[in-house]
Amino acid sequence: MGDGARQTLDVPRIDKGLDDIYVKETSICYVDGERGRLLYRGYDIRELAEKSSFEETAYLLLHGQLPNRSELEAMRADLGAARQLSPDILAFLRKMPKDAAPIDVVKTVVSLLGMSDPDRKDSSPEGNLRSARRILGGLSAIVAAYDRIRRGKRPVPADPARMHAEDFLRLVVGRKPSKDAARVMDAAMVLYADHSMNASTFAATVAASTLADLSSAIVAAVAALKGPLHGGAIEAAFNTVRTIGRPEAAEAFVREVLRNRGKVFGFGHRVYKTYDPRALIFREYARRLCAKAGASDLFQTAEAVQETVVRELQSKQIYPNVDFYSGLVFHALGLPSDLSTAVFAMSRAAGWSAHVIEYWKDNRILRPLDYYVGPKDAAYVPLAERP
Amino acid sequence: MGDGARQTLDVPRIDKGLDDIYVKETSICYVDGERGRLLYRGYDIRELAEKSSFEETAYLLLHGQLPNRSELEAMRADLGAARQLSPDILAFLRKMPKDAAPIDVVKTVVSLLGMSDPDRKDSSPEGNLRSARRILGGLSAIVAAYDRIRRGKRPVPADPARMHAEDFLRLVVGRKPSKDAARVMDAAMVLYADHSMNASTFAATVAASTLADLSSAIVAAVAALKGPLHGGAIEAAFNTVRTIGRPEAAEAFVREVLRNRGKVFGFGHRVYKTYDPRALIFREYARRLCAKAGASDLFQTAEAVQETVVRELQSKQIYPNVDFYSGLVFHALGLPSDLSTAVFAMSRAAGWSAHVIEYWKDNRILRPLDYYVGPKDAAYVPLAERP
Repeated sequence: MGDGARQTLDVPRIDKGLDDIYVKETSICYVDGERGRLLYRGYDIRELAEKSSFEETAYLLLHGQLPNRSELEAMRADLGAARQLSPDILAFLRKMPKDAAPIDVVKTVVSLLGMSDPDRKDSSPEGNLRSARRILGGLSAIVAAYDRIRRGKRPVPADPARMHAEDFLRLVVGRKPSKDAARVMDAAMVLYADHSMNASTFAATVAASTLADLSSAIVAAVAALKGPLHGGAIEAAFNTVRTIGRPEAAEAFVREVLRNRGKVFGFGHRVYKTYDPRALIFREYARRLCAKAGASDLFQTAEAVQETVVRELQSKQIYPNVDFYSGLVFHALGLPSDLSTAVFAMSRAAGWSAHVIEYWKDNRILRPLDYYVGPKDAAYVPLAERP
Repeated sequence: MGDGARQTLDVPRIDKGLDDIYVKETSICYVDGERGRLLYRGYDIRELAEKSSFEETAYLLLHGQLPNRSELEAMRADLGAARQLSPDILAFLRKMPKDAAPIDVVKTVVSLLGMSDPDRKDSSPEGNLRSARRILGGLSAIVAAYDRIRRGKRPVPADPARMHAEDFLRLVVGRKPSKDAARVMDAAMVLYADHSMNASTFAATVAASTLADLSSAIVAAVAALKGPLHGGAIEAAFNTVRTIGRPEAAEAFVREVLRNRGKVFGFGHRVYKTYDPRALIFREYARRLCAKAGASDLFQTAEAVQETVVRELQSKQIYPNVDFYSGLVFHALGLPSDLSTAVFAMSRAAGWSAHVIEYWKDNRILRPLDYYVGPKDAAYVPLAERP
């Protein structure tokens, strides 16, 4: 906002990044950047992280209200069924390059699963809601199975009776997680389940606006999530902290990065002008889990990085965002650090689906303009006469 | 444009569809909607369709200028090399469901190929240009091989010495095409190679803006292309004409669709207020090739549809777009009608890559806003107390 009338002279205004452009009305997610609040369907994220589960929150995002007992049980059963990968999909995962980025495997296999979704030609809201559950269940199972396979281990069969997040952790680590670990994994997936119109949700919306199917929209979102300016930031932030290694080294490292106009991953957000509420929750999880895992040095290093960044960039109101401490939490839960973007995807797929289904209620193809500044009368020169 | 100052009251302006929002400057493609002109890098599309080839036009879009002889030969060699699919990829294509939409196979396999691209971690313009050539070559070969396999035929090995479009046609049809057929296929790929900031190019740009890699951006574009409001329109338009079947039935059919406020696919465009120049060229190809193929009835039916739509919707300036006659051309060339979205993709991948590489020169993450209209203070009710 702020610069008044849209320019209508020869050179139009260019809305690079679309920072202050609203593309739709929504009743899914509210980010109060001034007060550091985040709501899903009106519910405060802090309360959901503490009391809700991923399946309940995904239901809330998709259906607009909290489920009753039988609705929640049906949701859990659907996710559990979708976690059971077919032998074909497992065979396919075994053929993936062992050094692939897990998020690329997710992108490929979600596209593959979409081709055999029984509702792929049903564009009704009900059909899409069924597809969304299959995607959510399948995604977690793909991430876990690929991770086992690339480490030379046997994929673990899903247990449809378990909570979704707990079962995911079990499928990766290979044994039943502690109650605390399962609880934190669940809360982490709740915290990552949506965040209004970020770049991946927007990519999904653009693809969906051509009336492509839900699976294709999710694939577009996964493609966007891969970038280090988006989902890739969790791993980048974690690697920074791990590289620094000890709290005493943090200040010099950060100051050197900032002096070279470099970027410290996991900090800053276009909307939040204060602490991201998710970052505050992840910080407490990180503190507790790192202590348990004997990795308190890592946590203290992260805290020292935060202190330096917040102090040095005070005038710019730069604070840790959701991706800064979550990498430490995933590490302490036993997840390989390069799995974090994929974990982000399997959580955010709830929000992606909810936003796409909402957009389709009043669809309009998303087709902005670009402003041409090149030549307009180039003369075609035959090949033989070119320099 | 038109409605003056952006609203700054409580309720912001919602730019649904982003119709009049400019997201970047470009020197790739210029659409003159008033005069019905289309330029690639300043060259008129009519001249390129007549004189250029797909490899030359792709070079022009990617590099900004026409290639000299050795540059063109290198481009052709790179595309030819990339058309040679590995046994692994062929084995994978054999496992695809035989009833999959070819565009879904493209989406999946482009994602798969990206994982083994030797330049996948090289984000320099040179690395991206090499990746773009691999994607262009691989895409055509995937489309052709999958089509053969699903029809129970053996994939034909690529011939790297041939022109790209000619070899694609040979790989699908199984024999060397006539000179005329090869020429029309080449021109068709030139005509589909770019069209400024359409929805698929925009999806690619959104994904790319997070600094995801080129392959991921192309996958996002393919996802968006699938929709019937975008690439899916070629097949939808062709099916309409085929369903009508004879010229005499066209008028009644079209009037009935319009009376029911239905959509006639292959008509109308946000930018063109007159005939799309590509539609005029495709129309002449369709006339000639349908006559040769003994399908003049189909062409005359299409013309009758056009006449009725243009007459009935005169006040709205609705004209056939690029997708209306191209389906007839692909049909006359021997391509199955459900392959047309995939043919669109393997041509447009040139433009997608060029736009992404251009955007990265001055990158900014694309993150618009959505306007929250839902509740802000929902109270969490424990499961046992829910109705």
